Amino acid sequence: MIVHETDIRVRYPDTDKMGVVYHAVYVEYMETGRTEWMRESGLAYSEIESSGLILPVLDVSFSMKRPARYDDIVTVRTMIRAMPTVRLEIDYEIKRGDELLTTGTTRHAFVVPETMRPVKPPKAFMELLEREFDKVAASTAVEV
Amino acid sequence: MIVHETDIRVRYPDTDKMGVVYHAVYVEYMETGRTEWMRESGLAYSEIESSGLILPVLDVSFSMKRPARYDDIVTVRTMIRAMPTVRLEIDYEIKRGDELLTTGTTRHAFVVPETMRPVKPPKAFMELLEREFDKVAASTAVEV
Amino acid sequence: MIVHETDIRVRYPDTDKMGVVYHAVYVEYMETGRTEWMRESGLAYSEIESSGLILPVLDVSFSMKRPARYDDIVTVRTMIRAMPTVRLEIDYEIKRGDELLTTGTTRHAFVVPETMRPVKPPKAFMELLEREFDKVAASTAVEV
Amino acid sequence: MIVHETDIRVRYPDTDKMGVVYHAVYVEYMETGRTEWMRESGLAYSEIESSGLILPVLDVSFSMKRPARYDDIVTVRTMIRAMPTVRLEIDYEIKRGDELLTTGTTRHAFVVPETMRPVKPPKAFMELLEREFDKVAASTAVEV
Repeated sequence: MIVHETDIRVRYPDTDKMGVVYHAVYVEYMETGRTEWMRESGLAYSEIESSGLILPVLDVSFSMKRPARYDDIVTVRTMIRAMPTVRLEIDYEIKRGDELLTTGTTRHAFVVPETMRPVKPPKAFMELLEREFDKVAASTAVEV
Repeated sequence: MIVHETDIRVRYPDTDKMGVVYHAVYVEYMETGRTEWMRESGLAYSEIESSGLILPVLDVSFSMKRPARYDDIVTVRTMIRAMPTVRLEIDYEIKRGDELLTTGTTRHAFVVPETMRPVKPPKAFMELLEREFDKVAASTAVEV
Repeated sequence: MIVHETDIRVRYPDTDKMGVVYHAVYVEYMETGRTEWMRESGLAYSEIESSGLILPVLDVSFSMKRPARYDDIVTVRTMIRAMPTVRLEIDYEIKRGDELLTTGTTRHAFVVPETMRPVKPPKAFMELLEREFDKVAASTAVEV
Repeated sequence: MIVHETDIRVRYPDTDKMGVVYHAVYVEYMETGRTEWMRESGLAYSEIESSGLILPVLDVSFSMKRPARYDDIVTVRTMIRAMPTVRLEIDYEIKRGDELLTTGTTRHAFVVPETMRPVKPPKAFMELLEREFDKVAASTAVEV
């Protein structure tokens, strides 16, 4: 499993009159998590768009266990469990320290923007994933 | 099944650089749908908050089939299939005319804000639902 | 002076933890005001974009006198005081009933998107403004 | 003059269908700039709220010279030119490298939330400003 963590500072506009983070904002936090994972893995999402493909979100689900609050630093843990076929599935945990606040999943497909036709993930992306999975395998081996 | 429809005009800030509605915005459209349903059923959400309870969102899931675009009028169809126990489940379809764009589900619980302890739905809300289900039953009977 | 009014229902995501509308949201309300004015005047902003021009915002200023709250219906009063030369200036008042909440001004220019070069307002837009100013003049005459 | 700089990565939801940052989002960037300035100066805005005061925005103005784009890193330069009396005025420049994108100003007052009555800035805030102005004076002296 590939795992990546990004910290986000909760901003004032992220809150609502309940005094906590407005629920739709977690969808943005998940996006920040996967964007920063891709950038640090060596293939920024902006490069995918430059190469003529887009990676729209097809499905989203998330559950809120505890609320995040203004000025909290929350950690988005982005997890890829399997190589994608046509669809790419990404899991998320949003935590404040050790406390689990939100879990979520997004599903994506690479798409040609003009036709909105799904295509296989580009080679550069598959290689990135293989590299990342190899790193995990190597470090798991070392742990033994 | 209780069914309610609300129209929403897609605004410029709802779009992103892909030229379509940003995916997290559908979560806001679903909220507008259920809020307008509650208001027209005779119990505005603001009255629930005035009575000392809140109705936070616990889980959200949604799937995007086709994108909504700037200036589109989309219809949010809000559907309640069953009387709630502690949890209230609401389904949604977002359409542009006959075209289905997005489907979704949210789950909620009535909660005391000070303790975040879930409580049974207030009597006024259960009566509202019974009234609405009765209306549906009556109109279904008439159709036969 | 051309005057147009649009009503907006304050949504939950428009609020912040202060319990009132987050200040940047008034910028969106002003946009809704001018968009609905244009649509009702017979030239929707989406038609301007289809004709190959855009009308970006160059300058914004606004002052908040009293806060708008969740579920309020606020009225955006959109006002054009003079025919544009290259720049178009629009004033706004946001009210809750008779109570003035926010005043603001935006300045715009018609621009060719590829070059971001400002151009004179398109003929259809100038005719729309002339028509609207004529209506105002006529109704003012009648009032005497 | 007190000067502070914060970097912000432009996110996907910050963009609109024009392909650039939606204009209201610059108001959020200015808030991030002043929030990070306060935190690094030793008095986080969340501490002000904990002490029983709020610092709402009264007036905002900003001008856009060039658009920021997705994935850009923009620098918000937050500037305080004078000690506040009842009102606090803050200026901003938003840049991408050396390129000036947006300039802006916000005006604020410390307020008791229950009554919305403006009060003089709290002692801790005035001391923070004096400390920061002293630092600037010292470093200017050194430069000579």
